[in-house]
Order: sequence, then C-alpha cells, then structure tokens
Amino acid sequence: MQNCDTGLNASKKIYIKGELHDIAVAMREVKLTDTIINGEKHSNGSIRLYDTSGVWTDQNVKTDIHKGLPRFRSQWLAKRDDIEQLADFTSQYSRNRVSDKSLEELRFPISYLPYRAKKGKAITQMALAKQGIITPEMEYIAIRENLTTSDKPNSYITPEFVRQQVAEGKAVIPSNPNHPEAEPMIIGSRFLVKINTNIGNSALGSNIDKEVEKSIYSSLLGGDTLMDLSTGQHIHETREWIIRNCPVPMGTVPIYQALEKVDGHAEQLTWELYRDTLIEQCEQGVDYFTIHAGLLKHLIPFATKRLTGIVSRGGSIMAKWMQENNMENFLYTHFEDICEILAQYDVAVSIGDGLRPGSLHDANDKAQFGELEAMGELTKIAWKYNVQVLIEGPGHVPLHKIKENMDKQIEVCHGAPFYTLGPLTTDIAPGYDHITSAIGAAMIGWYGTAMLCYVTPKEHLGLPNKEDVRNGIIAYKVAAHAADIAKGHPSAIERDNALSKARFEFRWNDQFNLALDPERAREYFGKSNHGSDFCTMCGPNFCAMRISREIAANSNEEKKRN
Amino acid sequence: MQNCDTGLNASKKIYIKGELHDIAVAMREVKLTDTIINGEKHSNGSIRLYDTSGVWTDQNVKTDIHKGLPRFRSQWLAKRDDIEQLADFTSQYSRNRVSDKSLEELRFPISYLPYRAKKGKAITQMALAKQGIITPEMEYIAIRENLTTSDKPNSYITPEFVRQQVAEGKAVIPSNPNHPEAEPMIIGSRFLVKINTNIGNSALGSNIDKEVEKSIYSSLLGGDTLMDLSTGQHIHETREWIIRNCPVPMGTVPIYQALEKVDGHAEQLTWELYRDTLIEQCEQGVDYFTIHAGLLKHLIPFATKRLTGIVSRGGSIMAKWMQENNMENFLYTHFEDICEILAQYDVAVSIGDGLRPGSLHDANDKAQFGELEAMGELTKIAWKYNVQVLIEGPGHVPLHKIKENMDKQIEVCHGAPFYTLGPLTTDIAPGYDHITSAIGAAMIGWYGTAMLCYVTPKEHLGLPNKEDVRNGIIAYKVAAHAADIAKGHPSAIERDNALSKARFEFRWNDQFNLALDPERAREYFGKSNHGSDFCTMCGPNFCAMRISREIAANSNEEKKRN
Repeated sequence: MQNCDTGLNASKKIYIKGELHDIAVAMREVKLTDTIINGEKHSNGSIRLYDTSGVWTDQNVKTDIHKGLPRFRSQWLAKRDDIEQLADFTSQYSRNRVSDKSLEELRFPISYLPYRAKKGKAITQMALAKQGIITPEMEYIAIRENLTTSDKPNSYITPEFVRQQVAEGKAVIPSNPNHPEAEPMIIGSRFLVKINTNIGNSALGSNIDKEVEKSIYSSLLGGDTLMDLSTGQHIHETREWIIRNCPVPMGTVPIYQALEKVDGHAEQLTWELYRDTLIEQCEQGVDYFTIHAGLLKHLIPFATKRLTGIVSRGGSIMAKWMQENNMENFLYTHFEDICEILAQYDVAVSIGDGLRPGSLHDANDKAQFGELEAMGELTKIAWKYNVQVLIEGPGHVPLHKIKENMDKQIEVCHGAPFYTLGPLTTDIAPGYDHITSAIGAAMIGWYGTAMLCYVTPKEHLGLPNKEDVRNGIIAYKVAAHAADIAKGHPSAIERDNALSKARFEFRWNDQFNLALDPERAREYFGKSNHGSDFCTMCGPNFCAMRISREIAANSNEEKKRN
Repeated sequence: MQNCDTGLNASKKIYIKGELHDIAVAMREVKLTDTIINGEKHSNGSIRLYDTSGVWTDQNVKTDIHKGLPRFRSQWLAKRDDIEQLADFTSQYSRNRVSDKSLEELRFPISYLPYRAKKGKAITQMALAKQGIITPEMEYIAIRENLTTSDKPNSYITPEFVRQQVAEGKAVIPSNPNHPEAEPMIIGSRFLVKINTNIGNSALGSNIDKEVEKSIYSSLLGGDTLMDLSTGQHIHETREWIIRNCPVPMGTVPIYQALEKVDGHAEQLTWELYRDTLIEQCEQGVDYFTIHAGLLKHLIPFATKRLTGIVSRGGSIMAKWMQENNMENFLYTHFEDICEILAQYDVAVSIGDGLRPGSLHDANDKAQFGELEAMGELTKIAWKYNVQVLIEGPGHVPLHKIKENMDKQIEVCHGAPFYTLGPLTTDIAPGYDHITSAIGAAMIGWYGTAMLCYVTPKEHLGLPNKEDVRNGIIAYKVAAHAADIAKGHPSAIERDNALSKARFEFRWNDQFNLALDPERAREYFGKSNHGSDFCTMCGPNFCAMRISREIAANSNEEKKRN
C-alpha cells in the first residue's frame, strides 16, 4: 500500500505538544506560496488542517499493514491504574478463532491481549469527566479542534470545555483501550461535524485486502470514524486487520456477526450468543457499537403499515426475532447488561434507529418517533453506567421535515449527540444518493447533528468500490464543512478564506493543496493551464478575476495620484 | 445524433389536449409493472413526468439537427394580429453575417425571417396577462405543471392562476416568437423549481458540434432552460444552431458577444454596438438576456475591497468600462431603451448580479446588496414596459446567510422571480462544486428561488465536457426536486412514492425508469443482480427490505388467523 495518493503529501505532518499531558497532537500544515504584487513578495504563511490520516501520511514513519499502526495510546494506558491487561480473551468465540489453525493464512500476524477495566473501576471518558478529570484524550481533542494549542483567542474549545461536554453526555470520545492505534476525536454538536464512512464485505462481494485498502483510503480522505459492516465470510479476521491499521475510531453493528453465527436465522439469535459477540468485539478494539435497542415490539405494527417498512438491516433482524419468538427485543430487555459490558471497555453505544424511514413518505412517522422516545429512555440508563451514547437518526426525510428531527432528538434524548444517515432529501435519484443525502446532511449538521454517516453513489444499488468511497467521503466533507461554517466553529472559515485568496491570485497550487481533494482538482484543471492568469473555463478575455484585479490595481493607482 | 441515450425511451411520450386552446402538451409517461402478491397481480398504473426533451424523445418524430426542431408555436403566432414577420433582419451585424459567403460552411442551413411586435402593440406575455388574456402558453404551462389537465383536484395551478402570476411579475414565461421551437414553461416561486444549464465555447476550447450536442443532451436530462455563454469564435453561428435545435427557452449574456466585436477591449464598448447586438439576438430567438444593469459606478469601491473582487464576467467587463471611461454603466443609463427593444420580441430581462460574491467571505456584503437594490428599481422600469424580469443571485454564500438573500430579494425586487447560481456553501471543494452548490440550491429553492443555475464539477477549473454536464444537471434536478417537495408543489411527491414502492417491492426496472438518471442507476446496479429479491449491497441474509416484507406478510397471516 502506498502511503498516499490523495495529494496530502503537498503538506507536512506536524505535531503540537500538550500542556497538561505528554501528548503530541497530529495535524497537517499546508505551506502557502507568496503573493507577488509589483514584484514584491507578501507571505501568506501556512494553514493548519484537521487530519484524520494518522501516520499513513507521516513521511517519518515507516508503515506496513502487516504490522499495523503504532499503538501510541498504550503509553497513556500504562499510566492508568484502573485498567489491566488480561491473560486471555474472554469471549469463547475469540478463543476458538485464535486457536483455529486453518485461519492462520487469513489472520493478522500479531495478536494483542485485551485491556479491560479493573474490577469496580469506572474507566470511561464519561466517568472520568464526571470526576473532574481532564484526560490526555480531552486535551488532545481541544488542541486538535482548534488546530493550535488551546490558548487560541476567541475559541471556547478548551480542555475543560471538552471535559464538561463529555461529563454532560453532550459529546462522545470513542476510545476503547483495545484500539490504541486511534487518535482521539470527539463527536458533539459544539465541535467540528464529523463524518462516518462505512465499509465491509457482503456475502456476494469484496475481500479482506480490499476492505483494508478502503479503510485506509477513507482515513486519508477525511473519514472521522469508520464502521465495518461486513456480513460475509471471516468477519472476525477482517475486523482485526482493519482495526490494527485504523487511525480513527471504528464501529460495528454486532448483530450482523451474531446473525452469521446462526447462519442467517434471525429467530435463533440469543442473548448469550450476542453477549459473547459484544465481548469478542470489545476485546478486539471496536470503539462503538450500533445497538438497535429502541425498536420495541409494540412499534412493529406502525412499521408494517409503511410504504417501505423497515429498511435498517439491524432493525429488520430484531423485528423478525420479536415476531418469531413473540418476545420483547432482547437488546432492550438486556440493555443494562449491555451497558455493564461496554463500560468495562469504554465502548460507546450508538443506539440504532431500526425504524428509520426508508422513503420520504415514511419520514417523521409514529414508528420513527416512537423509537426515538425509547432511545431517550435508554440514553439515561447508559449514562447511569457512564457509557457514552450516540443516537442514530434518519434516513429519508424531505427538507421541510429535517428540523423537526433535530428538535425532537434534542428534546427526548437529553442532548446526546445525534448521528444521522444523510438524510436523503428525495428518493428519485439512485446513483446520486451521495448528493441527495449531502443536502440533508449539511442542513441537519447545521441544526446540530454531531456526526454524519456518509452515503455513496451506490446506495440502494450495490457495494461501493474505491471511487464510490471517494465520492461519498468528499460529498460528506463538503456537508460537514458547510455546517461547521454555519455553526461558527472557530477553525472552520480560515481554510475557505485562504483558498479563495489563492484562487483570486491565481496561486493554483495553493488552491489545490487547500482543496478537499487536491488530486481531483488538479486532474480537472489539466496540465496545460498551469501558471496561467486564467483557465480554459472563460479564456483570457473573459476571466472576471483577472479583470477584477486590474480594476483594483487601477483604483489603487488613482488613489495614489490623488 | 442518436435520439436518446438516457434511458428516457423506457417511457412513452404523450400529449394532452388543451381545453381553451388548440394545444398538445408534451409529457412523459412511465408505465409501471404490476405488484404480485401471492400470485395475484395488482396494477401500479403509470406515472407522468415533466419532460424537457421536446420531440428529441418522441419516437414518432424524425429529428435532424440540420433541419432543426418543428416550429410548432408558429401556428399560435399565425393567429395573432399583434405580431408581424419582417422582410429582413434589423441588425446590421446580422445582415453582414447572413451575406458573408465565407460562413456558409458553418451556418445553420435554413434562415428564418424574424417576428416582431407590430408598431404600438404590447405583445409580451406580461402585457397580455395584464389585459386578462389567457394565452396558449399559459394554458400549456398549467397542464404541464400539473402533469394533467387543469381539473386536478387540490391543485392551485390553473390557467387563470398562471395568468395572474405573470401579470403581477411573480412568474416569467420566456417566449420570444423567434424561438417557436421551444415548449412553453414558467419560472416563478409557486411553480416547479427550474434549472438552467450553461454551455458555450471559450476562445480555448470546444466547437459548434460539441455545443449543439451538449445543448440537446441538457434538455434530454432535464435542463429547463439553456444559456449559451460562448465567448470564442463564431458566436452568431453557434447560437443559431443551438436555438434551432433547442426545445427549451434559451438565454445569453449579450455583453459577451459585444466584447468580441471590440476584440476584448472592454473600454471600447458602446451603447450603439450593444444595441445592435441585442437586436441581432432578439431576432435569432434568444428568450432572455442577462444584463448587468444594476452594477452602478458607486458600488465598485465596495467590490475592490473584497477578498475576491468581482467574479461575474459581465460584471467585471462593465466595471472596467466604467472605470476606463469614468461614466455610469451604460446598461443602467440606457435601461429604458433596452426595455423598449425587449418588449418588441418578448425577450425577458434577467438582471445580472455583477457583484455576486465569489467567496463565502464576500457574501451578503455592501457591494452585493447595494446592487440588489438597484435591481429592484430596474424591475419596476421593466414592468412599465411589460418586459418580464428575472433577478440573478449569488454565488458563494454560507448556509446561515442564504435565507437573508431570499428575504431581501423578495423585499426589494417586488416579487420578481429569483434565479441563483448555486449558491456554493463552501469554497474548499474545487472539483465538487456541483455538490457544494446543490446544497445551497436546494435550500434557496425551498425558500422560494424560482430557477437554479447549475454548476458542474469543473467550476473554477475548466470547461465542462458531456459527463460534467450530466453530473451538474442531475445534482441540480435533485436540488430542485427536493425543494419542490418541501414547497408542497402538487405534482412533486408522486414520483418519490412510486419509486419507493417499486424499490420496496424489488421492481427494479420500475425503480430505474422512475429515476432521474436511469442509465446510471442501471450501470451501478449491474446486470448480475437483475430480478433478485436483494442486491450486492447487503446480500440475501441482510436485505432489510426482504426481511421487512416477510414480517409484514407474517403480520397479515396472523391477522387472518385471528
């Protein structure tokens, strides 16, 4: 795997030291060229960018997917007395897989023993925040979000602010000690809007190599978190490869693997099987789980009356289970048991919206909002266990019904961060759902959604390839950034201003280096234009920017004469 | 040119007769396949779609770009006693071009003599509407917007409503009698949101064939109007080819051609030259002109202080002219003369925003809003001459400043339809500006903007090719449709519901036929999936829709048993 094919190497990886903790916060610095006016050079300095790519883009680090990323957070863990490393895996399934010699070819070459809370210790970021402790993760995030040390004037994002937000449940730091390769990041409405990307094979396509490649590619392009939604062969091994090479928090939907373990027979799922799957994944290093615990039995009739029924995979599995067994959702009845497990590994729960609408027609209906209320109840239970909570949201929602989603979520879920899929604002554009949904995502991000789950052009049609992942991610980086600006995040607008200045001054390389996808911009510009005071779009006589600069120069001349 | 490569041929062209006039309103009908439940067939009927493709998609019409489209509106004109056909072209430039034998190779093979108002007659749709006349164009539009004859229950869009809106200046029907090939359409906030596409060569690229091809392609994909922004060689001849083959209204920015006539020396532009250019284009059949008459001299200093100055080509040309000649904008001082000309050909004026912001930094500033106020004044003058008016708008605007644009436009421009470029909601994504701007476009369309000028992925970087045009158009069809649904347009949501039902029932072909871009959807789906009750995205065990249908079926069984 090449380190970088996205143009990121036009910039330099830098590390900013912490003040409270011995940490080095990674970010990206783009050195800008000078503006030249009448032969005189005026420096444009440099711009720091938020960077999700980890050391994949650090020229000083030799990377190798067979060794995985440096486990830099292990040093932080080593200083803690509330966490211990176990002598073996707790999950029976994990033990079986590790000892299965037939899997050796497939398996990630290094095996790490799991970390877990010491008995009776509350180890989650939320538990520590409630005790008034500013963790290294919190300081890291404050520096990272400001793109500078925390003394940036006018910024509210201090380490103490991060702590408060986490203590109140308004922000989540996914940080399983078993994924020490991941750089700390935060999900909350007062921070940069994050984007999640989904990868994963299905029974019909893809393989481990491709999934690892897509996962790294996702972080190179700006994916803030990554969900492995694999449902086909070798889920356990695929996940291990991805986590060990993943510089961002990683999430899963454990019910998918549980279903594989019962050969796709939803009705045969049991709490015991699911429990073992949770522990298996906690000990591999998954940072957050989507758990469809709010889909209650009495809500199913509302969903079956819909135009498009249940469109969440996890939701449909649980509904089927309830129907076949005539019992309440075991993820709901065992929710406290789940929280007890998650608390020991600081795995966040992302309460899944099994009843999200799959069409505009079904948006904001009784099924959807009924589930949302149940999710609000569950939020309080999770917080009692100091488990960090995300609330998943729709789906397909027309523009005029988006705000109601956000308002209602804030109201009934007590301020827990909202994490939405899109929403898609029309159903009629299969092949372009990265766009139908980026529109809704930008809007709901502005209204306060903390993380946007990306949608690729292949949504509804097939598994995304690498180019689809690229188009999905950039559409969502656009949506998230547009929302950040509208929200007034302290570090958002600087990049736009720097790029626009470069554009106006025909500093093409600066413009490309500051772009979300430098390679694409360069490719479209073409080599022939390079260095011109215009481009093929308008030609020389019609370049407004060129003429406008002449007008400004003339105005200055006139002023000087007067 | 093949008639169709966009999948439109999965549907049938139909024509609905008028009741007031002898008209046949073209639309597209998609026949849906049956839903089969337990072997029983349930008809899904058919869905009518708004269609901009003209007879290019009518299997019963033989088309040939060398002959142009049928001039069907000529029959309507023949019945009018306020319009006459002239014996020669009025513009000196036109006469020179027509008699220039060296252009014969390039020229469209057929020459039509121009129509113009008889002396003293007020012929525009607005003039007729004010007199209480419902024109064939108005009835056509009422039927077209409803996708049925005007007796559709619950729809406010009657022929009389169309007339009122046009009389009040709230809607525009671009309808130059010299473009009788175009199907009537309307631009106004109470109607379907329209999209404009731009084509045109620059000095550095493209040629007539390619431009004609792109123009037809644009109407096939759903472009409601088309602007020819050519600035290179043979503007006059290129335009003729495009208009004669264009089933939608066509616009230009006449100052571009005027500038070519003075070899790019903006300061040498004169009113006389511009006047002749206007008449030349009126007599060719251009339906609306972008005229940067609101860019007043005192506003230039506000623009030169900006981060990105003036980014409108027309705006920069006029600013340069004013600066060099130290005179007020001649498009402003001669605005009444312009209106007198336009009124004779029912050419609408689209008052150009020469000071639209070219970066988020410059959005909603004094330059932009100062110009908007001048545009409001000009609107009243144009209406006095019964000239229909569009108001052009930004540009680059962050999400939280978009609504102010719409509100202020409504306030100062007296309800004249707003026609915006995007707006782009961030500056940092060159290569993806169809997406940065579709986000802003959907939002401002919902707020009331009547027409959205598309942006292609090549914006800021180069001239779009055919694939760029496709991506730009579909992004904007998405934005416009999302806005239509949010506005509650009476015919919008039906298509979403039909497609979603097809999706849920795995009627793949119906889903594709109802999609904005059927070919793309089919391509992504792949042939292997065809006919399956799932797709490669999730595989069979994880198909929520399949499981959900089983759950619904089981529920029904249970109900039957009880």
